[in-house]
Amino acid sequence: MKPAIPKGTRDFLPAQVYKRDYIFELIRKYYRRFGFQPIETPAMEDLQTLTGKYGEEGDKLLFKILNNGDFLEKVDANALAQKNSQQLLPSIAKRGLRYDLTVPFARYVVMHQNELAFPFKRYAIQPVWRADRPQKGRYQEFYQCDADVVGSDSLLYEAEFLQLFDQVFHELGLRVVIRYNHRKILAAMAELSGYADRIMDITIAIDKLDKIGLEGVQKELSERGVDENAQALISRFLAVESLEELEPLLVGNSSGEQGLAELREMLLFAKKGGLANAGASVFHNAQKFDIKLARGLNYYTGAIFEVEVDTQLHPGIRMGSIASGGRYADLTSIFGMKDMPGVGISFGAERIYDVLEELNLFPVNSVGGLQLLLLGLDEESLGHAFGLLGQIRAAGIEADIYPSAAKMAKMMKYANQRQVPKVLVVGSQEAESGLYSLKDMLSGEQNSLPLQAVISHCLAS
Amino acid sequence: MKPAIPKGTRDFLPAQVYKRDYIFELIRKYYRRFGFQPIETPAMEDLQTLTGKYGEEGDKLLFKILNNGDFLEKVDANALAQKNSQQLLPSIAKRGLRYDLTVPFARYVVMHQNELAFPFKRYAIQPVWRADRPQKGRYQEFYQCDADVVGSDSLLYEAEFLQLFDQVFHELGLRVVIRYNHRKILAAMAELSGYADRIMDITIAIDKLDKIGLEGVQKELSERGVDENAQALISRFLAVESLEELEPLLVGNSSGEQGLAELREMLLFAKKGGLANAGASVFHNAQKFDIKLARGLNYYTGAIFEVEVDTQLHPGIRMGSIASGGRYADLTSIFGMKDMPGVGISFGAERIYDVLEELNLFPVNSVGGLQLLLLGLDEESLGHAFGLLGQIRAAGIEADIYPSAAKMAKMMKYANQRQVPKVLVVGSQEAESGLYSLKDMLSGEQNSLPLQAVISHCLAS
Repeated sequence: MKPAIPKGTRDFLPAQVYKRDYIFELIRKYYRRFGFQPIETPAMEDLQTLTGKYGEEGDKLLFKILNNGDFLEKVDANALAQKNSQQLLPSIAKRGLRYDLTVPFARYVVMHQNELAFPFKRYAIQPVWRADRPQKGRYQEFYQCDADVVGSDSLLYEAEFLQLFDQVFHELGLRVVIRYNHRKILAAMAELSGYADRIMDITIAIDKLDKIGLEGVQKELSERGVDENAQALISRFLAVESLEELEPLLVGNSSGEQGLAELREMLLFAKKGGLANAGASVFHNAQKFDIKLARGLNYYTGAIFEVEVDTQLHPGIRMGSIASGGRYADLTSIFGMKDMPGVGISFGAERIYDVLEELNLFPVNSVGGLQLLLLGLDEESLGHAFGLLGQIRAAGIEADIYPSAAKMAKMMKYANQRQVPKVLVVGSQEAESGLYSLKDMLSGEQNSLPLQAVISHCLAS
Repeated sequence: MKPAIPKGTRDFLPAQVYKRDYIFELIRKYYRRFGFQPIETPAMEDLQTLTGKYGEEGDKLLFKILNNGDFLEKVDANALAQKNSQQLLPSIAKRGLRYDLTVPFARYVVMHQNELAFPFKRYAIQPVWRADRPQKGRYQEFYQCDADVVGSDSLLYEAEFLQLFDQVFHELGLRVVIRYNHRKILAAMAELSGYADRIMDITIAIDKLDKIGLEGVQKELSERGVDENAQALISRFLAVESLEELEPLLVGNSSGEQGLAELREMLLFAKKGGLANAGASVFHNAQKFDIKLARGLNYYTGAIFEVEVDTQLHPGIRMGSIASGGRYADLTSIFGMKDMPGVGISFGAERIYDVLEELNLFPVNSVGGLQLLLLGLDEESLGHAFGLLGQIRAAGIEADIYPSAAKMAKMMKYANQRQVPKVLVVGSQEAESGLYSLKDMLSGEQNSLPLQAVISHCLAS
C-alpha cells in the first residue's frame, strides 16, 4: 500500500518544526512574562460540550468520534432504518475533537472554579480541528495561541494586551498596525443613525470602505435600506481618525460615551505602562482607532482588537488579520456559571509563519538545529571522535557524528544534507596531536583547533 | 447543563503544566543535543495506515473519526440492516486518532524519504489516543516522547541511547538502572535449550524470577512443557551477571555469539564516549545485562533496553519501566519500503512525573511560574505600579499586577492563591520616594528597594 495522510492535514519536516517552535516559544515567553499561566485540556470533548456553541455551520465542522466497541448495539433503530445521519449521530458518537480553545476554556473555568485564583489569566497553545474544505492556507488541524483573563472588568488588561501585541511583533521583527474599536461605539453609531437594530448591515457595508470607497459604501447602505441622513452620519464616523474627533459625535449617547471612556482609560493605562519606561515611546508599532473594525459582534461587548501587517512598511504583504481579540461580558453562562467577564486575544500562528517566511524574518541562529557534525576517518578515530562528542554535548552544544568511518565524499554529503554549519574532522593525526580540523561549511574555511577552542567557537556562534 | 470531560481524559492546572513541561523540555533538550531533529505528524491518520498494525486488540482501541456530512449516504446497506458495526465501519469512518508515534513515523519516512538525510534521527513529543478502559495511571490521551535513528546498523547509536538515558535521568535527579539484553541472545538460549520455537514461553516464565524464585520459574517451565535439561541450561543463563559469564554459554551458537559481539561493541562505544571525558566514570547510573529482559520480541531484532528506578537508592518506588527501547531490522516494509533498520527509545513521561512527584524531585525554581506580583494601594499608585511593571517585564521577569486598588487583605489573598514568591507594594509614598516595598511571601521579610534592586533581586532568585 502507498501511504498517505488525510486531506487538510500536514506533516512537518524538522526545518519547519524549528520555525514553528520559534513562533510558539516567543508567544509563550511573552504570555508568561505577562503573568498568564498555561493550562491544557484534552483533544476530545463530550459532544454536548461542543455542540451548539459555534452555530449551525460550526456544528457541521466538528469532527465526531465514533463510540468504541459495538457502536450499533443501542442505536436509534428508526434513524438507522431511515438512514438519517443527523438523527443517528447522538447514539453512535458521544465525543468530538475540540473546535477552538475558548469553549474548552469556559468548561474548564466552570469545572475548576474552586481551584483557580480570579482574575484568572491563562494561555493555551494547542491544536484544534475543523472539517473545513481543505484549501491553500486552511487546514483541518491547526494551532491556536490564546490568552484570556477572566473575572475582572479592569481596563488595565486591555492595555496589557496592546503592550503584548506590540512586544511580540516587535521581537518577531514584524511591523504591524494594532487597530481597535469598541462594541458600544458601534452600537452608538447605529443608534444615532436611527438604525439601532441594523448594526450588522452597517458594519458589513463600512468594512468595504477601503475596497469600494465612500460612495460605494453609501450605495451599499442604500441597498440595505439605510437612509441618507443616516448615511451622512455614518460618513462622519468614517472620517474619524482619533478619539478626540470621535467625542463630539457621541455626545448624549450613553452607550457611546461609555465606550469612548473605556478606550480612553485603556490608552491611559497603556501610556502609564510605557511612560515610566525611561521616557521611551510607549509602542514600537502603530495603534489606531478604526470604526470599521467589527468582529465577533455576537460575543464581544467592549474593546475589539485586530492586528495586521503594516503594509506601508512591508509593502506587498496581503494577509489580513494576524492577531485579534476583545472583551466579552460572559464566558461561562453556557455552562451555568454567571458573571464571568473577560478579555482575550489570539495569535494567528499559521499566518504569522507565512509572513515571516515571505519577509525572510526567521532568525537563522535562534531557530535551532544541529551545530556541529563530527567525522571519523577510520575506526580508531571514530571512537576517539565519539569521546570528543561526549564532551562537546556536555557543553550544551547540539552535535552529532557520522556513525561509521565512511568515504569522505559520503560523509560530506551527509553533512550538507543535514545543513550543519560546521564539521569537525578527526583522523589518526588529529587524535594524536589533539588539534582537530574545524571546517566552516558555508565559507569552506578550515582551522586546526584544540577541543576547548572548538567548544568555545560553537558556543559563540 | 453541568459540564464534564470524557472519561480517561484530563485537564491540567497550571502547576501541573509547569511540571509536565519541565520533563518534556528536559527530554527535548537532550534529544536535540544528541542530534535528533523534531518532526510532527497530524493527530488524525487514515484508518488504513493504522489498522492491522497493533494486533486485533490494538485495532479495537483505535479511536475512529466519523466521516463528516451525511455519513450514512453511501453505507453498506447490508451491514446497516444487520446492525453489523465492524462491517459498517469502513463506510462511515476513514480516519482515526494516532495510537502511537511509531507507525506515523514509518509512514512519514516512506512519504518523505527524498527529503530526509539518512541516517535520519528524529524525535517526537506528541499525544496519542487509546480507547483503553480508564484506570489509575492509564489514560485515553497521553504523551509519548520518542527518538529513533533509522537507516543505519551502527552500534554507536545503541551506545548513544545508553548515554542519553543516563544523562536525562541524571539531570532529573533520579537514580535508575539501565537494563539491556539482546534479541539474538534470547534466541540462542531458546535454541541451545532445544526449544527454538518456544522463546515466548521461556521469556514469560523467566520474567517471573524476582517474584516466584528459581524453583517457581522451573515449575512454570515444566508446565509449559520445557524439559529438565533445558531448565538446567536456562538456570545457568539466569545466573549470568556479566557478558564475561555469558560468553561460555553461547560458544558455537552463531546467533548468540553475534548478539554478544554487538553488546560488546555497544559497550566499547559507550566507554569511548565516556573515556575521553576527562577520566570521568562513563555513567552516572548503573547499567547491567539482564537475560530476563524480553520486550517487543515481534519487533525488536537486536539490543533491547529498559530503564527502571533504582529501588536500592529510592526504596519504596514501585513503578516498573520508565523508559525503554531497542533495535529493529525493519521499520517501513509495512508501507512498502525495504531495508530501513533502526533503533529507538521512548520515555514514559507520565510515569516519570509520578515518580518525581513521589520523591519530591521537581526543582522549585526551574519549574517556572509567576515571580513577582505588584499591588497598587490607590488609583494613582496603581498607574505608577503599572509603569514599573513594564520595566520589570522588559527585564525578562514573569510579573503581574492586581488590576485595581482593592483592599490589602483581598490583594494579599490573591497573591497567596497565585503562589507568587514575592510581592511589590506601591503606595503614594513609595511612588514619590522611588523606594518600593518588596515582601517575601514565604519568610514575611520586607525591604525597601529602588526598582533596579527589585529587578536584580528577581533575576537572581
